[in-house]
Amino acid sequence: MTSGIYGRFLQVKAMTTALSASSDPDRRALLERIAGGLLADADAIFEANRTDLENAASLPAPVRARLKFSREKLDASIASIREVAALPDPIGRVLYREKLDEGLLLEKISVPIGVIGMVFEARPDALLQIASLCLKSGNCLILKGGSEAINTNRALVESIRRSCAGSFATPGWIELLETHDDVAQMLKAQGVIDLIIPRGSNRFVRYVMENTLIPVLGHADGLCSMYVDAAADTDLAVACALDAKTNYPSACNSIENLLVHRAVAGEFLPKMATAFAAAGVEIRGDEAVQAIIDCKPATDADWDTEYLDLIISIKTVDSTDEAIDFISKHTSHHTDAIITRDPVARAAFMRKVDSASVFANCSTRFADGYRYGLGAEVGISTSKIHARGPVGLEGLMTTKYLLCGSGQVAATYMGSGARAFEHINLGAGGESVNLGGEKS
Amino acid sequence: MTSGIYGRFLQVKAMTTALSASSDPDRRALLERIAGGLLADADAIFEANRTDLENAASLPAPVRARLKFSREKLDASIASIREVAALPDPIGRVLYREKLDEGLLLEKISVPIGVIGMVFEARPDALLQIASLCLKSGNCLILKGGSEAINTNRALVESIRRSCAGSFATPGWIELLETHDDVAQMLKAQGVIDLIIPRGSNRFVRYVMENTLIPVLGHADGLCSMYVDAAADTDLAVACALDAKTNYPSACNSIENLLVHRAVAGEFLPKMATAFAAAGVEIRGDEAVQAIIDCKPATDADWDTEYLDLIISIKTVDSTDEAIDFISKHTSHHTDAIITRDPVARAAFMRKVDSASVFANCSTRFADGYRYGLGAEVGISTSKIHARGPVGLEGLMTTKYLLCGSGQVAATYMGSGARAFEHINLGAGGESVNLGGEKS
Repeated sequence: MTSGIYGRFLQVKAMTTALSASSDPDRRALLERIAGGLLADADAIFEANRTDLENAASLPAPVRARLKFSREKLDASIASIREVAALPDPIGRVLYREKLDEGLLLEKISVPIGVIGMVFEARPDALLQIASLCLKSGNCLILKGGSEAINTNRALVESIRRSCAGSFATPGWIELLETHDDVAQMLKAQGVIDLIIPRGSNRFVRYVMENTLIPVLGHADGLCSMYVDAAADTDLAVACALDAKTNYPSACNSIENLLVHRAVAGEFLPKMATAFAAAGVEIRGDEAVQAIIDCKPATDADWDTEYLDLIISIKTVDSTDEAIDFISKHTSHHTDAIITRDPVARAAFMRKVDSASVFANCSTRFADGYRYGLGAEVGISTSKIHARGPVGLEGLMTTKYLLCGSGQVAATYMGSGARAFEHINLGAGGESVNLGGEKS
Repeated sequence: MTSGIYGRFLQVKAMTTALSASSDPDRRALLERIAGGLLADADAIFEANRTDLENAASLPAPVRARLKFSREKLDASIASIREVAALPDPIGRVLYREKLDEGLLLEKISVPIGVIGMVFEARPDALLQIASLCLKSGNCLILKGGSEAINTNRALVESIRRSCAGSFATPGWIELLETHDDVAQMLKAQGVIDLIIPRGSNRFVRYVMENTLIPVLGHADGLCSMYVDAAADTDLAVACALDAKTNYPSACNSIENLLVHRAVAGEFLPKMATAFAAAGVEIRGDEAVQAIIDCKPATDADWDTEYLDLIISIKTVDSTDEAIDFISKHTSHHTDAIITRDPVARAAFMRKVDSASVFANCSTRFADGYRYGLGAEVGISTSKIHARGPVGLEGLMTTKYLLCGSGQVAATYMGSGARAFEHINLGAGGESVNLGGEKS
């Protein structure tokens, strides 16, 4: 029922004040309790996961591998929850403080966004990562996992909710949805859900982006490229390109296009072809590439195809600028890399390529919240608005201006004889002065 | 023609690299040249404005007052352009720097968003404010002003483009649209326009928000409230409420609802009623208010009405929490204020009210980019995503991750025998190390 699910959304929204006003010690303690609860509930969780795996018997092995929630994954998830718990409090940070006039102090502080709507793939460990980031940042969470994981997700959310009983987060700061219709209702809940973070297939993410008025954070495509410059160390280039293609071919930060400067193509391509052949990678090349190594011809469509598989298209270029132009036409603005020893080419590439992450002399696979040191991530954004690249706690925060005066009115600062503002920047950090009266 | 206007959008987008790669001295110099050019073109601009004013002869006086572009407004605009020019460079700020491992350095830097689509009311000085903020922040601009100002806007943009001739910003980083159909095409230009900032009537802004997949920054409604607490200085409360209602009744940061704690209603309301009567403000009160002062009865609809006029609805409450609850139901999350001498009530109000700006003991009219010391503003956002409250240069920036390595691959950091990341935070600020090779 529409009204039923909308009522549940409103109940979650009603928890936003309790979450945003909670103290960091309380949120840390609750995350610890959740971690302990998951350990205590391990058997029930594993049993639910076995049911999901049995139901998924006919699905491809990689899907089943992601779905499987093993003891190792539980231990890693619990370690991750404790790491998130220990992160500095993201709420109430004073981003800047400005004296507008005598007795008129402005502060900009960080506050939770409110209600996050999350849709994610059938990966139970992702649920725990997302839930811990939301709770640490004082956000309420409405989430829907891939339906293959339905029993595991239920067991996880039930365990989390049991651990929350009696705390500041009671009842229901977290709500699990289970059907496609629930998701459709979620997309219509503007004014209740503040931000939607979709993960999953390109098609699904694009569907979400095109069917809601709620702001969406994430990425549909991960079409990443690597450019091997004229001044590249070609052995280093082979190692980086091989990792970027084969370390996890279905990941969004794997490369699909490889560009190589004509000046090093003769040296680089035979070594690269040998390495790719050993890893089972199919090469599709332009004419110049075909003249140097044995490969299939690349079609125009190849340059825009996210294979998510052991296939790569290779193109030769005559300059760094040509590589940058090519990337600007074909990138999904996720992650693009240059391999070069020339600092000028490197800087030009890093400045001009308009992607969330721009790399030099390393694999594109580092584009990831954990590897960036964010603790964990809720997703990777290719939008330029709000948060870009891997999104950790910071992307779950918004800001609020606090202004405390002593009776000031705007008329004083207008017209002839207007009083001037002082506008003295008093820096950032420390406790909020404007919240000073509070006993927390 | 659709293809014609879309082609113009693409031409603007083609300028984004030149704008984002430009140096701050170049942008400052160009802003100075634009300021000088406007002075030189003053007569042509004033003549165009006279034509607009003649065509607008039948429009209401406030509309004509905003439309009029006088010598004083030109001088103020030029001073504002020079202030914006002198602001610190917003591009390339290192927001943080983290050593992931030996020879693997991550930086997060600020970069322009790209192409801003701006729709604004018939106020020629707004065009200059918006254009100078966009140029200073390295963003391209497609803009459409209220059609009453069409001749003035043309003259202003022609002057700006003349000043840009031969600079890094040639041709067309700024493009003026003139028809409603152009705006409709703008709303469909996802992938080309990165952010739309609409200003104008509530209905128009809501239309924009509901008819584009491009992120939108702004506010449709400005339903602001002021709460006079039991511990208020009632004289101070009268002064603040009077200013917040009457200083500029049609502004988004003026109040529509006034709440008063029952304990001070008897002392406060008669003074307030006298002040409002002298200013020509009509009062609509709940039953308790009607028992104390002479006023019209407020209906349920009044609490959700943005009058934009000399009308106020007044309600009594029994506690700070009741005031907070009432505000949470009726606010448009723009600006809400408390008047109190009690620091605990103040802190509770400031923490719990979920609005872009939350004030204590001053008029809501201070919610404004200039008054906040942002230099100028492109608008005020009630969205929680990206930028919230008055939006100056900072809201026109996004970020980019730069990672420079020395051949690192992800496989090294995975599985058994995995190398550990160092994740050492190296702070913020200074020149980007990863862009270090660049000669700028």
